[in-house]
Amino acid sequence: MLDETAKGVFTIAATPFLPDGALDFDSIDRMVDAYIEKGADGLTILGMMGEAGKLSAEESVAVVRRVTARCQVPVIVGVSASGFAAITALSNEAMEAGADGVMVAPPMGLQTDAQITNYFHSAADALGDIPFVLQDFPLATGVQISPSVILRIVEDCPTCVMLKHEDWPGLEKISALRKASDACGRRISILCGNGGMFLLEEMIRGADGAMTGFGYPEMMRQVLDAFLADKLDRARDIFDAYMPMIRYESQPGMGLAIRKYSLARQGIIAHPTLRKPGAGLTAAAITEIDVLTLRQEKRLAELGL
Amino acid sequence: MLDETAKGVFTIAATPFLPDGALDFDSIDRMVDAYIEKGADGLTILGMMGEAGKLSAEESVAVVRRVTARCQVPVIVGVSASGFAAITALSNEAMEAGADGVMVAPPMGLQTDAQITNYFHSAADALGDIPFVLQDFPLATGVQISPSVILRIVEDCPTCVMLKHEDWPGLEKISALRKASDACGRRISILCGNGGMFLLEEMIRGADGAMTGFGYPEMMRQVLDAFLADKLDRARDIFDAYMPMIRYESQPGMGLAIRKYSLARQGIIAHPTLRKPGAGLTAAAITEIDVLTLRQEKRLAELGL
Amino acid sequence: MLDETAKGVFTIAATPFLPDGALDFDSIDRMVDAYIEKGADGLTILGMMGEAGKLSAEESVAVVRRVTARCQVPVIVGVSASGFAAITALSNEAMEAGADGVMVAPPMGLQTDAQITNYFHSAADALGDIPFVLQDFPLATGVQISPSVILRIVEDCPTCVMLKHEDWPGLEKISALRKASDACGRRISILCGNGGMFLLEEMIRGADGAMTGFGYPEMMRQVLDAFLADKLDRARDIFDAYMPMIRYESQPGMGLAIRKYSLARQGIIAHPTLRKPGAGLTAAAITEIDVLTLRQEKRLAELGL
Amino acid sequence: MLDETAKGVFTIAATPFLPDGALDFDSIDRMVDAYIEKGADGLTILGMMGEAGKLSAEESVAVVRRVTARCQVPVIVGVSASGFAAITALSNEAMEAGADGVMVAPPMGLQTDAQITNYFHSAADALGDIPFVLQDFPLATGVQISPSVILRIVEDCPTCVMLKHEDWPGLEKISALRKASDACGRRISILCGNGGMFLLEEMIRGADGAMTGFGYPEMMRQVLDAFLADKLDRARDIFDAYMPMIRYESQPGMGLAIRKYSLARQGIIAHPTLRKPGAGLTAAAITEIDVLTLRQEKRLAELGL
Repeated sequence: MLDETAKGVFTIAATPFLPDGALDFDSIDRMVDAYIEKGADGLTILGMMGEAGKLSAEESVAVVRRVTARCQVPVIVGVSASGFAAITALSNEAMEAGADGVMVAPPMGLQTDAQITNYFHSAADALGDIPFVLQDFPLATGVQISPSVILRIVEDCPTCVMLKHEDWPGLEKISALRKASDACGRRISILCGNGGMFLLEEMIRGADGAMTGFGYPEMMRQVLDAFLADKLDRARDIFDAYMPMIRYESQPGMGLAIRKYSLARQGIIAHPTLRKPGAGLTAAAITEIDVLTLRQEKRLAELGL
Repeated sequence: MLDETAKGVFTIAATPFLPDGALDFDSIDRMVDAYIEKGADGLTILGMMGEAGKLSAEESVAVVRRVTARCQVPVIVGVSASGFAAITALSNEAMEAGADGVMVAPPMGLQTDAQITNYFHSAADALGDIPFVLQDFPLATGVQISPSVILRIVEDCPTCVMLKHEDWPGLEKISALRKASDACGRRISILCGNGGMFLLEEMIRGADGAMTGFGYPEMMRQVLDAFLADKLDRARDIFDAYMPMIRYESQPGMGLAIRKYSLARQGIIAHPTLRKPGAGLTAAAITEIDVLTLRQEKRLAELGL
Repeated sequence: MLDETAKGVFTIAATPFLPDGALDFDSIDRMVDAYIEKGADGLTILGMMGEAGKLSAEESVAVVRRVTARCQVPVIVGVSASGFAAITALSNEAMEAGADGVMVAPPMGLQTDAQITNYFHSAADALGDIPFVLQDFPLATGVQISPSVILRIVEDCPTCVMLKHEDWPGLEKISALRKASDACGRRISILCGNGGMFLLEEMIRGADGAMTGFGYPEMMRQVLDAFLADKLDRARDIFDAYMPMIRYESQPGMGLAIRKYSLARQGIIAHPTLRKPGAGLTAAAITEIDVLTLRQEKRLAELGL
Repeated sequence: MLDETAKGVFTIAATPFLPDGALDFDSIDRMVDAYIEKGADGLTILGMMGEAGKLSAEESVAVVRRVTARCQVPVIVGVSASGFAAITALSNEAMEAGADGVMVAPPMGLQTDAQITNYFHSAADALGDIPFVLQDFPLATGVQISPSVILRIVEDCPTCVMLKHEDWPGLEKISALRKASDACGRRISILCGNGGMFLLEEMIRGADGAMTGFGYPEMMRQVLDAFLADKLDRARDIFDAYMPMIRYESQPGMGLAIRKYSLARQGIIAHPTLRKPGAGLTAAAITEIDVLTLRQEKRLAELGL
């Protein structure tokens, strides 16, 4: 079971599809193996980047079962939905299938501090004993969560064990939360998203690791390993080698297509297919990615990676 | 099967719950009977006012089956969801259970004309032969649909047979759509929502009826009957008798609680329970509703109703 | 100077234009006289319904000077702008010209409680001694302000003397604020907007009056007078006579055109002109208004008004 | 006068303030000189990054006059405001003071294609002969403008001579616009913003240059010069040297503080002051910037820059 001590690299998994849009279970297996081989300490499935909203309830359960059956590291399952009945249904199925926890983002439309706090109180009630990750991703949800609101939820809900930190800008938020837990507050795990864009600054501010799904997921492992070995300059060099691609992948609404293209290019998944509505890549975009990939490989080679 | 000639009163059904939040199937039966007895030409279930988003996939199917088993008039099922897989899954179950069509609202976040058109093209593709209602409810969805976009969808998608008109303000939109179909365009059914707030103006502008869920659903029948019998002054008198309550029910986020209170007060459903997150009514609100109800009854008695 | 004891009817004034869009100063004079004659205890100018955003800085000052020169009752000036420099500039000009206070709405985009509180702290700082009205109008601003945030601002900012209450739904907010001031908190004036749509319920919940700009502003005087004389049934009868028009005027983005048409119809302003971008009325809309006006006159005559 | 042939580097200028928030005219002079010395082909003032919304009308005019008096390259003035009266007033003052054109962003809240098109038609009407830049910055305005809408405005409004391209993702938009002008459409200038984040991809897609305000504005000159000299690899090397800082500056709501800190660090402006509401930098953030600056300097030195 997921708890407050979780750290390291939790890779956000894509959901592979066949060209006709059906689930590609073989690619799921290969992808799970590849993520772990590339250094994942855990996986997060059915997040926004996992096209969770495009699966039927039945398909979601099927994906969870396939991943948990294959995977030896902890699995977190995104269960965000329009209501608590759907959240609870998938959460229970997921935990039964062997998941270690679930992740909940606030629904679009929440605005005041009280609305957000109440939402997570109700979510915690609905989830019972299941440990959950609070996903804080304002660019996607439109919901701005103050540090004080997060702290309130952390104090009130013992099953809230992790923050998926994806606010932008968000560095001061990490500092504020760590200042509070350094004082006397309960300390939960903070893993950071945003495609890794601010990974080193986030670690320096007090994050416990990364939870994101960059197309070359070994980046997170390599950067964190250098950081944790106190080789900060080398960590920056590695990070800078990947940064042009991280930047390119950061384009909202296109990032997933870029990521799936990279995963397919590496043979990790069989097809870069997205379900509709989902942007494909134009020839121009593919050329841009290919150029960036070559430069990235060159830079990494210079770094002995 | 629902088609472009649909008209009259389609009552938006609540979803009744027991005090513990479980589905109240006995109340569903009683409510269906009452709606029909009070003049419904059709029912629309699992709309926003049916708390559709708060049901699990399994519960949604259960509600559809219960209603269609009980109901002799056409049934439209709201199937709006975060993705087409969920939409298709529920739609197929609904049609198999005997529903006559489905209703689709655009997801939050769509903005440009092209995004909206593409969405409904994809929805129509996903639904295949199933006739669908385009729900145009900007106050809830945040999506503004121009008349030209609706016309484009109507021309491109033969299975789009009805507009649930709930734009606000929306009277000019009805006029624009009717002007287009009077010219040479395909004519679809327009049924109006917004709690009935502009029902007579909408009918005069060319709407085919009402699709809304006011707590005293006989209002729609009575107003439409007088209107269709060319007794416009009487139609206005009847409408004005209900208007203080229509106005009170129009409060967003509270309307459903008010409506369920009224339905329970009349014995149509057993409990006014809403699922969380959903506002209950304070004592002050209940007093306000009771006062309005008494005045409404008095006015209706004066009108011989 | 405006203070916490303000109450009664503050009419929101339109800004009259000539057909070419220039300011119509003669109509300003006539309108001010008419508002006072119809029972205004105060005027609020340059609000959203005063097309404040469509005036240049110079024109805004000209309007303030004309109104304050003509007007014997207190004048509140809407000063909402994109930044504090513009707010301060207009506020100082307004107070010098004889205004009694200013009104500030939060800018679009504020979300968290802290962002809103900080904004009004800064606004109060920038305004110095000038008393201000906090305008709480989420439908227009997109900013949701919790009762606790309003209470915080009221405690922290002694120059915040009034709430323009225009949340929707908002009745529970009035009750919450009054409960707090009944306990021990500072009590400020609450005047209610929303076109008067919930005026009686608002008064019963503890509001101090109305601040809105319905096209027949005597409605507010007549309803409040009956309410304050403890003739609640008569207050409801009067309110119900105006309600079909209040409802029609509530259409967002069209309300101002309807109101200006009504004011021009009564000879209060010379032209119903709106500045661009602003919707004109179609022939169908004008017919609808005319029908409602006739019925309203008949009902009022039956009530001896 | 600005026209469709504009290209190269238009630097978005900050607005320097003294520590007490007053305009710092001496720094304006020094900054204008520095921008030109660092390679600007033109300046854009009073944009969002120029804190335009925080200036009074009078202050805006004062800034325009100071800049145009000092500056030998073309000057574009941001004139976005809540209404056309304010836009016209500032535009006329700006052109009289010697500006070459103005820039207009759509106001928050526009949604449909027709609303956006109508807005720019009205803006063009209001501006008369003044050439204007259409600013397309959805992340800040919330307004999504389709390529077809831009093309429509370009065809209808001969005074629309430039697109400030700041959509995100936006590369396909450049391709779509260039495809249209390559076919037969009118071709306008496209200068790109977004802090330069995608500068090379944008140039390859057909942009005419950069219009942004990165804290080391020589970056745009150096990258464009290498690109235009067909030294694409060198252009990428230079870009990559700046990228960690470009990325850091991309944090919304903090970017301006970072930029002003960098400008002050280089002695270009005297103080990094922002007007309220505006975030200052914490000690942790300043350390992060300093580290990035040192690495940037080292990298640039390696490149002989």
